[in-house]
Amino acid sequence: MKFVVIGADAAGMSAASRAKRSRPDLEVTVLEQTQDVSYSACGMPYNIADPHRDIEELVVRRAEVFREKQGIDLRTGHRAERIDPGARTVAGSSADGTPFALSYDRLLIATGASPVVPDLPGLDRPEVATLKNLRDGRKIRQLLAGGRVKKAVVIGMGYIGLEMIEAFHSRGIEVSMVKPGKGFLPWLDETLSSEVRKEVEKHGVGLHPGHEILRLEEADGRLALLCDGLTLDADLVLVAAGIRPNSRIAEEAGLALSVSDAVSVDRTLAASDEHIYAAGDCADAYHMVTGEKTWIPLALVANRAGWAVADNVCGKKTEIEGVAGTAVFKVFDLQVARTGLTAAEAEKAGFSPASVTIKTRSRAHAHPGSTAVHVHLVGDRDSGRLLGAFMVAREGVHRIDAAAVALQAQMSVSRFAQADMAYAPPFGPTWDPLLTAANQLVKKL
Amino acid sequence: MKFVVIGADAAGMSAASRAKRSRPDLEVTVLEQTQDVSYSACGMPYNIADPHRDIEELVVRRAEVFREKQGIDLRTGHRAERIDPGARTVAGSSADGTPFALSYDRLLIATGASPVVPDLPGLDRPEVATLKNLRDGRKIRQLLAGGRVKKAVVIGMGYIGLEMIEAFHSRGIEVSMVKPGKGFLPWLDETLSSEVRKEVEKHGVGLHPGHEILRLEEADGRLALLCDGLTLDADLVLVAAGIRPNSRIAEEAGLALSVSDAVSVDRTLAASDEHIYAAGDCADAYHMVTGEKTWIPLALVANRAGWAVADNVCGKKTEIEGVAGTAVFKVFDLQVARTGLTAAEAEKAGFSPASVTIKTRSRAHAHPGSTAVHVHLVGDRDSGRLLGAFMVAREGVHRIDAAAVALQAQMSVSRFAQADMAYAPPFGPTWDPLLTAANQLVKKL
Repeated sequence: MKFVVIGADAAGMSAASRAKRSRPDLEVTVLEQTQDVSYSACGMPYNIADPHRDIEELVVRRAEVFREKQGIDLRTGHRAERIDPGARTVAGSSADGTPFALSYDRLLIATGASPVVPDLPGLDRPEVATLKNLRDGRKIRQLLAGGRVKKAVVIGMGYIGLEMIEAFHSRGIEVSMVKPGKGFLPWLDETLSSEVRKEVEKHGVGLHPGHEILRLEEADGRLALLCDGLTLDADLVLVAAGIRPNSRIAEEAGLALSVSDAVSVDRTLAASDEHIYAAGDCADAYHMVTGEKTWIPLALVANRAGWAVADNVCGKKTEIEGVAGTAVFKVFDLQVARTGLTAAEAEKAGFSPASVTIKTRSRAHAHPGSTAVHVHLVGDRDSGRLLGAFMVAREGVHRIDAAAVALQAQMSVSRFAQADMAYAPPFGPTWDPLLTAANQLVKKL
Repeated sequence: MKFVVIGADAAGMSAASRAKRSRPDLEVTVLEQTQDVSYSACGMPYNIADPHRDIEELVVRRAEVFREKQGIDLRTGHRAERIDPGARTVAGSSADGTPFALSYDRLLIATGASPVVPDLPGLDRPEVATLKNLRDGRKIRQLLAGGRVKKAVVIGMGYIGLEMIEAFHSRGIEVSMVKPGKGFLPWLDETLSSEVRKEVEKHGVGLHPGHEILRLEEADGRLALLCDGLTLDADLVLVAAGIRPNSRIAEEAGLALSVSDAVSVDRTLAASDEHIYAAGDCADAYHMVTGEKTWIPLALVANRAGWAVADNVCGKKTEIEGVAGTAVFKVFDLQVARTGLTAAEAEKAGFSPASVTIKTRSRAHAHPGSTAVHVHLVGDRDSGRLLGAFMVAREGVHRIDAAAVALQAQMSVSRFAQADMAYAPPFGPTWDPLLTAANQLVKKL
């Protein structure tokens, strides 16, 4: 049986490796348009932060290992362009322009997602970068080499942008962030987002939400990003204004798309053709809280989906429960974590949300090094269910996983408030921050 | 209505405060045999570690605050000695020997637990200490004052002992640990316990399991702890060989005891007399995994039980789900966490356990500062349920709470493996250590 995978990143290589391992007789071919396979994309901001590191350190496994040790026919520089579901073929062209065509018994579309770059004058200049794949990372390292960049502007204020301002800052670069939308981290409760905002501003980063971006232009040998009511000098512009799924090849093959134009898949990751799967940033998923389709492109989701595709291709039927939208990131010395729905998202999904925001401490009473912990919790008045949890603190936000498991189990807030969590003075107060918030929220439901 | 509480520590004061807050008309009287109320007992090792701190910093709320601001009749220096359930009275004596008697409508026994001190020659000497209440903490700080203690011996190798060796070490004291039982942290999987052992020995602490303790004697102006096959010099001996519930007053009143002679209570914390409750270290609890009675004296359990008693006394029926045995502690730079059952405990409880032990990293591929993470997971072959989780690492073991919630929800290992956990390079690998372990364990079930 022939298993063909389009895309050699998290979902694609997870699927290819696991399938070949579980069924060595399987012919596994992976088509990758770049030369890069299996690298830690999420590690790029931290790599870029350090002038002495090499971006190639992020490569987890080299192409030769997949080819020689694992027996996977990994074809880099091969761009898949067309899928014919009737004939079960994929066609495309290799780096030198040579066309190719392959037949498959099972196909996985793992084409990922691409940064959204606004179509504005000057954003095609070489000083403009995005950060999604390893080529992007190489380009940014090259731009930064030799200390030529004194000022950087980030368009967008999401995870990637916030991770990158820390990287720029640690390399001595003056940074600003700008975006058309109002509000800083608008999905966070105001108390929590203002903590993050203070941390960012404390490090001298200029925050300019609510300014339409107009164009990037050169004047007197310097670049300037012209925005509505604001002009920002820049030696480098990072566009981190979101990503969109690379689903065109699927759409052109007649496959159904769903939320955000991601490829629509069922719980077995099958697309609307029984021989085709989709996984990773290009595919949708079920939300554990709403039960509805959603598109939340994150690394663990991609890896897990890749494994599930492999199992299904190999005949071991596997269903994916879905995503809770759990995420964590670091901005300077602050940690931010979330899982589940905001009150606004809950409202939109038909719940009747109530929420609380509490402030507590990261360590026990009188324990040295204790800092503030902010928690925002969302519950449903009708069912009593926990719907979402958000944390901002200087340590320990990884406990958000406890709330993620509670969401998965569809626990009520009152039951979650009974969770037997770990306590010792260096790790938190006797009542864990999540429990304190849950105890408060119970009273509102 | 008269609500009388015996014991002014975690459970007692949680109950008294909450009851008075929710029903200001309630007459709330607390009887406390010492002069200390409401302090962070768990914080004592960390306080003792620092010669410049004061043990009184650990007091969370002073007696006057409870009396004057909260309207609680808090009687320190009052030792309760007898309960007459028929007459609904408590009798005892105050510090100066004056007898007292009080009637109650509802009574809470929150008498805590006491360290077990082996009945051996010399263990009544002033250089021998335990560490349970604030008087113990004061005594140890006094013994350590002025640098008089050069060598300390800890009898026992449990949480308290391990936290205290770090405190002694940080004050420049040479430390040994000794106990009759074989094995170091025998409830931990061997790979995990050997990591802890290495960390302890790296800091020069002598570990001597398997030596019966015989007596403490003075010779040539020095103290020596004589053990079977071993003699340890000591200027201070800390007995940290476990605790037992202070349940005699309950037993003498005819109340039922259960596991480890803890006061038997139902899910509303009611003892075997409908007007009497028990909570905290003196009371038993239901285990979330086995559904059976257990005795796991920990701070959060005590606080939560105190609250539930208050609610029940005030007429708001509240049931406690129970405990999962979740605990965390720090030994030098290593963190140890557990929740649920060991394989041996699972076997004893009638499960058919399978387990895995994995080693992974604390941060993503190529992320600086990454260290080893060891996870041991236990599941049930018959039901597929997750039964227990154990972690040893230098950071991030607080994610054990995610497993604690999974135990509470009686999740299967395969479902837990689907948890949507948070990922970013500074916080862990893409597959969280708990997920990697769960994925391995699924194959064994």
